[in-house]
Parts: sequence; C-alpha cells; structure tokens
Amino acid sequence: MSKVEIGSDRIYYPMPCSLVGANVAGKANYLTVAWFSMVNPEPAYLAVAMNKAHYTNSGIKTNGTFSVNIPSSDMAEKTDYCGMVSGRKFDKAAIFETFYGKLETAPMIKEFPFNVECRLVQTVDLPAEELFIGEIIAAYCDESCLTEGAPDLNKINPFVLIMPDKKYRGLGQDIGAAWEIGKKLIKK
Amino acid sequence: MSKVEIGSDRIYYPMPCSLVGANVAGKANYLTVAWFSMVNPEPAYLAVAMNKAHYTNSGIKTNGTFSVNIPSSDMAEKTDYCGMVSGRKFDKAAIFETFYGKLETAPMIKEFPFNVECRLVQTVDLPAEELFIGEIIAAYCDESCLTEGAPDLNKINPFVLIMPDKKYRGLGQDIGAAWEIGKKLIKK
Repeated sequence: MSKVEIGSDRIYYPMPCSLVGANVAGKANYLTVAWFSMVNPEPAYLAVAMNKAHYTNSGIKTNGTFSVNIPSSDMAEKTDYCGMVSGRKFDKAAIFETFYGKLETAPMIKEFPFNVECRLVQTVDLPAEELFIGEIIAAYCDESCLTEGAPDLNKINPFVLIMPDKKYRGLGQDIGAAWEIGKKLIKK
Repeated sequence: MSKVEIGSDRIYYPMPCSLVGANVAGKANYLTVAWFSMVNPEPAYLAVAMNKAHYTNSGIKTNGTFSVNIPSSDMAEKTDYCGMVSGRKFDKAAIFETFYGKLETAPMIKEFPFNVECRLVQTVDLPAEELFIGEIIAAYCDESCLTEGAPDLNKINPFVLIMPDKKYRGLGQDIGAAWEIGKKLIKK
C-alpha cells in the first residue's frame, strides 16, 4: 500500500448535517452546519464552527443561545437550501415551523426529528470561524423516532456530507457493535 | 408530529470514527475518537475532544503534535479495540505499522487509508475533556483511495458510530448533491 502526500487543506470524513438556529434581530434564522461535534459528556457540551461572515453568528452572541436540529433524509433539500442563501436576504425560517423551548430564544425546527437547545458557554475565536461551545439545556425528539424512550437514529434517518464529492449520504450497513467487536484483540 | 422532551445528556448524530495518534514517552499510542470536526478552512484546523483521563492527552501536550487517522470499514475491529484499552497497560501501536511525517512526533497508521498530522494550536479546557485544536500540516492518502488526485471517501470506505445503538455503520445511499438540490427552493 503506497501513501501519497496530498494537499493539507482539510481532513476527509463523513460530516454530520445539521441546521443551527438562532434568533437574529428577534427573528428565527437557520444555517446549515456540518462542522460540529459533542465535546463534553457531563455537562453535555457541543461545539459548532461557523464562519464569521454568517448572519446567524450575531444572534448567538446577542442571545447567548442557539439550537442544533438534526434533519431526516427527506429534509435534505431544505437543509441544502439553508446552506446556500443568507438570512440577510432570505427569510429561511419561512419554510419551517419554528418552536421554542426552555431558553425561549433558541428557535427549533418542528419538522426535524431531533432538536437540542443550548446555552452558549464559550466562544473560541479562530482565524475564519467562531467555534461556539454550548451546553445542551434540553433535547426534543419526535415521538415517532423514539425506541424505548431514546432517540433512534434508524428512525431519525440522518445524513452526512462527503467531500470532495459534495454528496449527502444516508446511514449504511451495520459494520459491527461498538465496545464489542474489538474485544477479541485484547490480550489477557 | 408530536415532540417529546427527552434527557439532555447528548445530541444524537452519526459520529465519524478516527484514531488520534500521539507519541507518549517517546512511543506511538492511538486512541479511538468520535468527537472531532473540522473547525477552520484556511488555515485548516480540526478539533478533537478527548477525556482528560486518557493517556494520549499527555503526549499531545508534551510534543504539541498529534495525528488523526481515518479507518476503512475493514479496520473497525482494530478501531474498536483502541477505544477499549488504555495505552498505560497495552501497547496499542503493536497492532499497526506506524509512520511519521513532517512533524516527526505525530505517529500515523499505515493501514488506515487517510491520515493527517497536526500541530497543536490551542487547547480548550472543558469540564471533563480537553479540546485540542490542531492545524493540519500534511495529509496522506493511500494511492488506491485517490480519484483524480483527491481522496475518495467511496474508496476510503469510512464508518460512523451511532448511539444509543452502539453500532458502527458504513456510508449509505446517495441522498443528493450538496449546494444543488436546495436550489429549487431559492425564490428569485
């Protein structure tokens, strides 16, 4: 197997797709974000990286709140749209039904099966992006996407973005059980 | 569609799987990490969240370097294993062939199709985790996983972790073209 050094402009991996919500000037706005991750288990923190040019950032900083909404695959067109136009010119919230939760200023998307609302904990200033670290204050799931009371990603049916293909892809075949299939390699 | 408030202990999404590499006490060690993301495009920064208890963290802080290695689905067992045992007790690097690049202290896994080596830019101290932000200094790909000179995720064949199922899943069906399928929603 031969290794080739390639351009170091990014790391390639399946990037989860979300819409980040914030109130900007008192009105709900949503931005497509594929650069996010859980970053702390307890309290539950997640981090979202958003280019400083985006309209949504100012709302997050003003209110100290935001949401992350996980779309199902049949919401891919709406998800894609929200990454192509700016809230400065388009009323992106018009294509969704918005609801609010405990924080009152973090708009969430009713049609998306899984939503969390976050309180901004810290903003890390990066060269082109702001990395917003938020504590998950409450989480909401469509009743139809629960299995034994827990969100079921098989029912939520999320998707990832892959580059440089610029393609959205669904969840694929079962590769194995985590914290299980590696056990055979543990030498006692 | 009825929304149910559920426990706010995490957000559910397809988490990309990687092994983070660092030299600890001069020896290569690898840790399974599913909490990472790109966070800045230029310079290319990524962030990895790692619990403070992990052995690998000290190596990252000592050397100021680390790697992120993307496994193919046939490396799922080895990936799983590296998340179940500690480098304090097990020589996890023994199951891989390690190579080094420009930074000289960021060990990378030859068998994994895609690897980046990073210089530590910033460490964000979180309650349980350290969030290491690194600049990608160089990237390497198996020649067999390139298409027209760029890494091809269809060939790399990566996988994600889904919770609470504790399952690894491959890439699924094509949902549509990004920056394309949403165009029809743009009102001129």
